[in-house]
Amino acid sequence: MSDKNKKPQKLKARLPRGFVDREAADIRAANQMMETIREVYERYGFDPIETPLFEYTDALGKFLPDSDRPNEGVFSLQDDDEQWMSLRYDLTAPMARHVAENFQEIQLPFRTYRAGYVFRNEKPGPGRFRQFMQFDADTVGAPGVQADAEMCMMMADTLEALGIKRGDYVIRVNNRKVLDGVMEAIGLGGEGNAGRRLTVLRAIDKFDKFGIEGVCLLLGEGRKDESGDFTKGAGLKQTHIDFIANLFLKTNDDASTRQKQSTEAIRQHMMLPFQGLLGGEKQNETYLNGVDELLALGTLVAAAGYGPDRILIDMSVVRGLEYYTGMVYEAELTFDVTNEKGEKVVFGSVGGGGRYDGLVSRFMGQPVPATGFSIGVSRLMTALKNLGKLGQDDVLGPVLVTVMDGDVESMGRYQRFTQALRAEGIRAEMYQGNWKKFGNQLKYADRRGAPIAIIQGGDERAEGMVQIKDLIEGKRLSGEITDNAEWREARVAQEVVAEADLVAKVKEILAAQAEDRRRAKGG
Amino acid sequence: MSDKNKKPQKLKARLPRGFVDREAADIRAANQMMETIREVYERYGFDPIETPLFEYTDALGKFLPDSDRPNEGVFSLQDDDEQWMSLRYDLTAPMARHVAENFQEIQLPFRTYRAGYVFRNEKPGPGRFRQFMQFDADTVGAPGVQADAEMCMMMADTLEALGIKRGDYVIRVNNRKVLDGVMEAIGLGGEGNAGRRLTVLRAIDKFDKFGIEGVCLLLGEGRKDESGDFTKGAGLKQTHIDFIANLFLKTNDDASTRQKQSTEAIRQHMMLPFQGLLGGEKQNETYLNGVDELLALGTLVAAAGYGPDRILIDMSVVRGLEYYTGMVYEAELTFDVTNEKGEKVVFGSVGGGGRYDGLVSRFMGQPVPATGFSIGVSRLMTALKNLGKLGQDDVLGPVLVTVMDGDVESMGRYQRFTQALRAEGIRAEMYQGNWKKFGNQLKYADRRGAPIAIIQGGDERAEGMVQIKDLIEGKRLSGEITDNAEWREARVAQEVVAEADLVAKVKEILAAQAEDRRRAKGG
Repeated sequence: MSDKNKKPQKLKARLPRGFVDREAADIRAANQMMETIREVYERYGFDPIETPLFEYTDALGKFLPDSDRPNEGVFSLQDDDEQWMSLRYDLTAPMARHVAENFQEIQLPFRTYRAGYVFRNEKPGPGRFRQFMQFDADTVGAPGVQADAEMCMMMADTLEALGIKRGDYVIRVNNRKVLDGVMEAIGLGGEGNAGRRLTVLRAIDKFDKFGIEGVCLLLGEGRKDESGDFTKGAGLKQTHIDFIANLFLKTNDDASTRQKQSTEAIRQHMMLPFQGLLGGEKQNETYLNGVDELLALGTLVAAAGYGPDRILIDMSVVRGLEYYTGMVYEAELTFDVTNEKGEKVVFGSVGGGGRYDGLVSRFMGQPVPATGFSIGVSRLMTALKNLGKLGQDDVLGPVLVTVMDGDVESMGRYQRFTQALRAEGIRAEMYQGNWKKFGNQLKYADRRGAPIAIIQGGDERAEGMVQIKDLIEGKRLSGEITDNAEWREARVAQEVVAEADLVAKVKEILAAQAEDRRRAKGG
Repeated sequence: MSDKNKKPQKLKARLPRGFVDREAADIRAANQMMETIREVYERYGFDPIETPLFEYTDALGKFLPDSDRPNEGVFSLQDDDEQWMSLRYDLTAPMARHVAENFQEIQLPFRTYRAGYVFRNEKPGPGRFRQFMQFDADTVGAPGVQADAEMCMMMADTLEALGIKRGDYVIRVNNRKVLDGVMEAIGLGGEGNAGRRLTVLRAIDKFDKFGIEGVCLLLGEGRKDESGDFTKGAGLKQTHIDFIANLFLKTNDDASTRQKQSTEAIRQHMMLPFQGLLGGEKQNETYLNGVDELLALGTLVAAAGYGPDRILIDMSVVRGLEYYTGMVYEAELTFDVTNEKGEKVVFGSVGGGGRYDGLVSRFMGQPVPATGFSIGVSRLMTALKNLGKLGQDDVLGPVLVTVMDGDVESMGRYQRFTQALRAEGIRAEMYQGNWKKFGNQLKYADRRGAPIAIIQGGDERAEGMVQIKDLIEGKRLSGEITDNAEWREARVAQEVVAEADLVAKVKEILAAQAEDRRRAKGG
């Protein structure tokens, strides 16, 4: 630690809490995944837009500055004209602002997609970051259920394009009007009941986690978990608990029901609770409207060949955001993964969205319907890595031109070899570190995964020759690696060729290595 | 404005000053350009990294908080643990922090690239934004001139890969040690002269704009521009002005000199001013060191086939940033463009960089050499658009499946057609607006650039048929557009086919349209 005494003011290199750097393999995997998503969205007629990282704080909606520094949940700062700006916390609010600001130029219905970083000014934790990427798609100016149906089909197609098998995912759909209608029916309508409504919705949202019994406890007095912690319930009376349990949960309590789901069965099921089970609660218009929309969506997607194995009407879908006004939908991966406690759990949601008819109209003098969804990019990447569908960094290491002599003329030759390789599209490097320790150069080649090393010492130079080392074959021959293609004859791992033949020889070796990899995969 | 009375609290949709939204064509063009850049960098053995938007303010270097809110030039805010964080203002400082933080894991020399947004908290103006994109490449741990040489060649290759012809660009290279050595020689060394040194460097930096005479005025008493505004000069005595003018400027005062530049000529030229011209100023070690490095770079790139038409040693290159310690290089586009005043001017710089051996070591107890450059993405895009090398949005509009009937069953059919097209990789949409005005649907198809419209009314539906309109051919036949292929026979612009043949027929028409486009380009 003598350094410390010498340089007391030495800076500490560290990232702010909740932020991370990303490495090559991760960046390439994300780019590959997002390119696939983009292809699907473009095929659906969507076009990209992009908004900047900053918005005026009031345009973001719920975070109006009510104090000197409105920093709750979002990163905010005051511009030099005293206006508060914030880093966006999602991609929906900025898109709504964009559409409202350019309303005269935009041709509705407007299908749009965008990927970008969003920011949350929250306590970071394991897997919880303050900057993360979302990938959104929205249709603005499309009032009909068919727009929601299209979103669900697009989510399904996207997951399949990424390599997720049919059966390993499901798009679950519900309608906020159904939820609102039920609240009305059991006397929880109106502003005054907002708090209790939220408790009920949160209880329903826990179906995946706690099952029907757990949800019923949360709808009633409350629920004690394994650790003894008690969560206070919504305090509904038993008939209302039964009503909700029947309606929302029984449809989806086993996989076989999911497969058999038909429009008629759903309709009957959704009407049942109102037929005498309760003390006289009436089907209300909100409720019936929601049911009709759900059934229409089911019919539309079925007509296009998307059965309930892919798009499933599921009354337990809630989705937290306040601004949804109709359909809500969620993409869930249904395969098991092992969590940090070693338990098998369903992977769960990788994205979702819904209809938000009020978000653009906040800026306008007229209603502007809209529907859309968001994919959590890093969560989906985790899923794909779990399935082995992503993360193989197939970018080849560079051919390394080693340096044996440091005079400018020799360096010029090495540089010429390197550029000649690059000019032919071959990934190549001349060694740029301290060339005097040749061992370091070979160690570097190894750590970079270099497939070939080029060597020219004084003797070779005098003869206009150059040595080419096949590093992969070299490892195979020395037994450092084994492959499935034992039957093939060994290549020469080291050759000396004329300078003029360098590029051709390197190409030949790279082709042979590629063939080996192909066979190894096939075997 | 009656809306205003009804909704007094209506939000105004507007972006903060200095920020912009980006549209589809611009995003696609930028992605295409950046993909090309990436390919070149990967071929040179560079790998991507990415850092988050925030850094601790002290890690950014020159913007240490000396007041309550260190908001000069950067966007800063205080985290809840009282530490100041800032949005990055370039990609170099965060990269230096990344390397220092992960020094044990990183294999040096480390070739790395990254693209990303950077932020400047400055007064926005025309073409001056507070968020913009840079694309950087750096090599850390490479002390030799060969690493700088590689950067210059990579910049040249990148510009050519983007379609910029040889002769339309030049990479100009200088060395800070040469500049520093001259300052020493004319008695402007040392801390006390920092201000005057800066004035001299700024004067030299104006060579492109004002020519030799203008620079000499700025080195002496000062210069008055056309509007009469006076810029105070550095106040050098005449022998020193002559000295600098000879050394830095005469090499590059016409294009023919550029082509004839040889290592020996440069050496002679650079030594000349010290041979008796002045009152006894001595060549100093800093100066000689800089000259040697420049000559070595010239030899290295020449050996690799890069002549002074591509990489030019040019003593007038200064580059503003404080942190450069050796080579500085700049990519300049040499073709003329018309500026906002209607004058022909050289397009100028699209990027540059240099060696900064101190930037990583700030965090370390040891020296860490590094060299790299940055491309201004939107400036380069402007250049490419000027050359017609970018900006043609070649993404085809979607096939539009129109809606003639709004009942769920009909909608289901339209949806099925749409999905069948998409499943075959054809960009397609079902109309999602108010379907009742058919004229709106056709107008929408037109504005979206839809190549084909699909129509199925009641009559066709009864027969299991569907109408297919070739919208491009329709326009051609109606004389709305003309093309170069008049000689070919007109296609049928409208056909009725069986539902089962829909996809095949659409493919056939799209192929015919693509062939037309190909011929029109060829003609």
